Amino acid sequence: MNRLEQQMNFIKEVDKLKSIIRQNYLIDGSRKEDDADHSWHLAMMCAILSEHSNEKIDVLKTITMVLIHDIVEIDAGDTYAYDALANISKRERELKAADRIFHLLPQDQAEEIRSLWDEFEESVTPEAKFASTLDRLQPLLLNAESGGISWREHGVTLSQVLERNKTTHEGSEELWEYERRIIQKHVDNGNLINDGGYDEIQPTI
Amino acid sequence: MNRLEQQMNFIKEVDKLKSIIRQNYLIDGSRKEDDADHSWHLAMMCAILSEHSNEKIDVLKTITMVLIHDIVEIDAGDTYAYDALANISKRERELKAADRIFHLLPQDQAEEIRSLWDEFEESVTPEAKFASTLDRLQPLLLNAESGGISWREHGVTLSQVLERNKTTHEGSEELWEYERRIIQKHVDNGNLINDGGYDEIQPTI
Repeated sequence: MNRLEQQMNFIKEVDKLKSIIRQNYLIDGSRKEDDADHSWHLAMMCAILSEHSNEKIDVLKTITMVLIHDIVEIDAGDTYAYDALANISKRERELKAADRIFHLLPQDQAEEIRSLWDEFEESVTPEAKFASTLDRLQPLLLNAESGGISWREHGVTLSQVLERNKTTHEGSEELWEYERRIIQKHVDNGNLINDGGYDEIQPTI
Repeated sequence: MNRLEQQMNFIKEVDKLKSIIRQNYLIDGSRKEDDADHSWHLAMMCAILSEHSNEKIDVLKTITMVLIHDIVEIDAGDTYAYDALANISKRERELKAADRIFHLLPQDQAEEIRSLWDEFEESVTPEAKFASTLDRLQPLLLNAESGGISWREHGVTLSQVLERNKTTHEGSEELWEYERRIIQKHVDNGNLINDGGYDEIQPTI
């Protein structure tokens, strides 16, 4: 198989990301979002919001990272952030998926994309931290704008949201401050169950 | 309204792109594709296939271009490539949409994104030509892999596909050669109606 055919096999395979359905709804509440929609939205957000990163980032690298960050879910499925049991086996399922899917690409590109995915998962570099911040902010924004349907469906609590977002500020203090105000509003209006931690989302001034 | 709020209003508005439905199906035939799925797929293709561009391109610029290229369809709707009547009013509807949607952003970003969209529409620069090549190749790939459902539904002919793809080679001769072979196969198996132009898709050697 030649190089272009290998690349095309990968491009055809990742079409399946459009059929992986997430737990959060679109803003208009009409349906749940798919993984490709989500990844597009993150890439768009990265193009618009990169100036808010705490540290200077390579924007192309960060966009490419968010474009590929969920591809492993083609095999591993979407693991709902607040499903504790499923999250135990998540890492193993995703590693196996990465081995299969990225290696449809020519060797050099397979290694490059795999290394970018590993970097995202480790969440240490400025690019990975900012990508992770966007990956937390985007569903929260959609949940909030759609009237908290998904939170209410799953009985999500404030402490779960705070645990999920404990590193959001590492990518961007400004975006975390924006998120904090959204969370506070949705605890106040009852879309998120207040089970403690409310003092953590008070304005710092 | 501060800068971040303007950016967030844009980010929330473009969520609607996920509800704009295209005419082509996903590869598994399960449903028609939405515009955000499509834009994600183009960005992914750009990251993987940029080496096949005829001319050297700025990859970040090209990815950003494909991420935003269909946003005007939020107001203007998806105009099916082979609907001659709808294509007459397309330009006017899209210009009006660009004026509204891009200007949700802070002035500097509104101008930047608008200029990138204009560049895509004019299809003169290497980046715009390559983006346009991907925008032709992607639905053709999905139509072909899903067994030509969408072509058969609309009775699409070879001459229509050739007209639609007359500039595909300007972005990438290699990708056009790949496309040409797909088109030939689907004329031969009857998914595309052979109404002339078959000699144009013969191998050049």
